[in-house]
Amino acid sequence: MSDSPAGVVDLLGVLAYAELTAFLRLAEDAAALAPSLTDRAELSGIAAAEYAHFRLLRDRISSLGADPERAMEPFVAALDDWHAQTRPGDWWEALIKAYVGTGIAGDFYREAARQVDPRTRALVDEVLAEEVRSEFVIERVRAALAEDATLCGRLALWARRMVGEALSQGHRLAAARPELALLLVAGGREAAPEGGAAPPAGGVDAGLIEVGRLFARLTEEHGKRMAALGLVPGP
Amino acid sequence: MSDSPAGVVDLLGVLAYAELTAFLRLAEDAAALAPSLTDRAELSGIAAAEYAHFRLLRDRISSLGADPERAMEPFVAALDDWHAQTRPGDWWEALIKAYVGTGIAGDFYREAARQVDPRTRALVDEVLAEEVRSEFVIERVRAALAEDATLCGRLALWARRMVGEALSQGHRLAAARPELALLLVAGGREAAPEGGAAPPAGGVDAGLIEVGRLFARLTEEHGKRMAALGLVPGP
Repeated sequence: MSDSPAGVVDLLGVLAYAELTAFLRLAEDAAALAPSLTDRAELSGIAAAEYAHFRLLRDRISSLGADPERAMEPFVAALDDWHAQTRPGDWWEALIKAYVGTGIAGDFYREAARQVDPRTRALVDEVLAEEVRSEFVIERVRAALAEDATLCGRLALWARRMVGEALSQGHRLAAARPELALLLVAGGREAAPEGGAAPPAGGVDAGLIEVGRLFARLTEEHGKRMAALGLVPGP
Repeated sequence: MSDSPAGVVDLLGVLAYAELTAFLRLAEDAAALAPSLTDRAELSGIAAAEYAHFRLLRDRISSLGADPERAMEPFVAALDDWHAQTRPGDWWEALIKAYVGTGIAGDFYREAARQVDPRTRALVDEVLAEEVRSEFVIERVRAALAEDATLCGRLALWARRMVGEALSQGHRLAAARPELALLLVAGGREAAPEGGAAPPAGGVDAGLIEVGRLFARLTEEHGKRMAALGLVPGP
């Protein structure tokens, strides 16, 4: 069940649209918020890498005999909403968003890779191998914090809000697409029975609990990124 | 003189900023104007290819010992103005702009390649070898014209305006950067004497005449693209 084409196409569809829209939003932020041409070029480079990921995912959807547009469609509203709720107000917020956004996407890839078929897993590995240029963000943010300590509280709050919005949209999606949710959470169940991932009518709530655990793992990874940036989370 | 670092860095600088800003504007148009996810992904792909070109040019500037940001800076205003004057109002205008813009950029590469040092020429060849995905644009525009013949006049006018704005900005740049202008036009002079490209104080006007001839060649190439699109230029 867990590697059924339907679930896999859903998974590839949500990741593909996430990459496509990340590409477009990062480019928008680079154009509107970068304080110098060098910074603009750096953020553009992160955006272009997202497009390369999108292309790999789209081609995999096609090779499974599915239509990429139809595979992405169910996830457009949730991801567009997330971006609308997390529109950066300045360059620092844009940097944090780039780092946090690609970070969470990477965590999702990792969770997904546990459960899918070998060819899709090879693709996921390929996407993850393309190192995200996070050093640039970390270096820039740390330098800014060293100069202006008051920035820390604001950016920590901003990062927390972004993750909160991501979990909120994630829960909406999990409720609307139980197959996808079960595919993702099955990877986190150490001792799940073989047929345990099948979505019975009453199994959605159990699935949502697993989704909560998945999100707890994602939040933990997020905390590590905040520490790397020098943004210690508040109480 | 024609392969002096100053002229070459100017040339690489204007091309690099043209590619970087094309990347960002195409991404913006893809996000705002594409009628479907498939179309959005296609235009995003053209944008991502522009970023790859930018990276090649930027790295070449660095390898010449120059600072990419400082090399691009003198050309920011002219290219930003061009984009401000040619903001597409709908999807068809965005497609035409992508095709015409990358087409003119390609023509500039070709003109420039005639005159620069061998290593820079090899780079230009590499950029040109990366085939621009113009088939997508041609196919989409031709299909739209077949459905709605009234579109033809409007889009032909739009394309002409874009080229007019490009020539206008080009003339401004040529006046402000005589070294760059002479580097470009030297490639078009079949029988120029060896030292003929040196910019004497009174040589700017002669250079501008050559620039006019260069632009005539560019306009001719533009006409071929209009024919490929099925947009016969008006009287």
